[in-house]
Amino acid sequence: MSHGKQFTLYSALVGVNAWKVVIVLEDLGLTYETVNLDLRKKEQKLPAYTSINPNGQVPALIDHHNRDFTVWDSCACMTYLVEKYDTEHKLSVESLEERMSMLQWMHFQNCCQGTMLVELFCFAFVMPEKSTLALKRYHGEIIRAYSVLESALKGLKENDGSDWLVGGKVTIADLGFVIWTHMTPFLMSTYEGRFNLHEDYPFVSAWHRRMAEIPVVKKVLDSYDQANRGLSSRLKQQNARAS
Amino acid sequence: MSHGKQFTLYSALVGVNAWKVVIVLEDLGLTYETVNLDLRKKEQKLPAYTSINPNGQVPALIDHHNRDFTVWDSCACMTYLVEKYDTEHKLSVESLEERMSMLQWMHFQNCCQGTMLVELFCFAFVMPEKSTLALKRYHGEIIRAYSVLESALKGLKENDGSDWLVGGKVTIADLGFVIWTHMTPFLMSTYEGRFNLHEDYPFVSAWHRRMAEIPVVKKVLDSYDQANRGLSSRLKQQNARAS
Repeated sequence: MSHGKQFTLYSALVGVNAWKVVIVLEDLGLTYETVNLDLRKKEQKLPAYTSINPNGQVPALIDHHNRDFTVWDSCACMTYLVEKYDTEHKLSVESLEERMSMLQWMHFQNCCQGTMLVELFCFAFVMPEKSTLALKRYHGEIIRAYSVLESALKGLKENDGSDWLVGGKVTIADLGFVIWTHMTPFLMSTYEGRFNLHEDYPFVSAWHRRMAEIPVVKKVLDSYDQANRGLSSRLKQQNARAS
Repeated sequence: MSHGKQFTLYSALVGVNAWKVVIVLEDLGLTYETVNLDLRKKEQKLPAYTSINPNGQVPALIDHHNRDFTVWDSCACMTYLVEKYDTEHKLSVESLEERMSMLQWMHFQNCCQGTMLVELFCFAFVMPEKSTLALKRYHGEIIRAYSVLESALKGLKENDGSDWLVGGKVTIADLGFVIWTHMTPFLMSTYEGRFNLHEDYPFVSAWHRRMAEIPVVKKVLDSYDQANRGLSSRLKQQNARAS
């Protein structure tokens, strides 16, 4: 570690999950050096990296101020950062019960939003053949996930007057969704079925906008778009050529 | 709550994720009443249940000794139980760093083992058409997940002499895998590709056997098999009729 920053973050330009961690690092004002792996060259599968993250995916995070403690999985990285450094609970909650509510939503985000969007992406852009059956399934799973969120956010607003998933304030439970939600309309456009975030999921849409307007989140979303400029049109062109 | 037990667990006979929570309840000697939902009748999508778990899946857990605190998602339920009631750290670890290592493996279990096996199950038994492309993908993803586990468990044994994922002892990070691993050979048999847990993943196989021999785990696996007796042959027959 010669870069002098507190953390090394292993990331990738298109690696949405790694960018979830960037939001927390930025919001807590922690210093970090980003090492971008080239996923097309499968650098994330090389022994130099799997010795850090045996799962061979981004992100992984090394804390040089804590004996090079290493953690991987985006939700675990976010949780580590708040449990260790968010002592004023700026992005987190304190009671066991609220921490467990955060945890359940973070598992939901990871399994039911993030993973399902990865599957949609794979069947839209990576797999060697088209499978309408699979595209339809993941399009449907994302609609299911946003319907769950819509109903939960509506209930929280109406019953508790809360704009956020846990504890009446923005936490990592909310922030874990923001970059994937930012990408969702594009990913959902790969299948013919209807998906209109603003019209069909007004509570999710308003919640997403509240987050996207937080200066740190706005900066990270802008950086993500900057790093991936032209990606969506390149992917669509690639698909048009293949079909 | 008239059953007099500390917890109500919403489960389903075939709902593997709910049975993960049973292991922890049993191991910590906590009393619980199981409410089995009929997934074929979609009871998990009825408002009576989604008011408890907005995600409309099993499990959900209500703690009647803690003002009916409710938590859903199997990994969040397991974590709640140990954080609140495993004060002697029988199935858990104490330091922040080890807790975060548990967390990363539990997210891996949920996303890369459990969710991928659910997808394999869906394409093998639920979807209206066959998709060899999808079956091949999820067969491959499960091989990837077990290869990650094999490499991690081998490294832990060789470098630290440890038989377990975190802290040198069995924790919920290990136990979260056991029922899905128990089901994996059957689920993997739905696609022609090779999968031999014992021969191809000797460290995973030995780790799984160590867990399966723990009396509480053995009891839960036996109960699961008892509750689902004949399920695998019924599913295979159903598939044979459909094709």
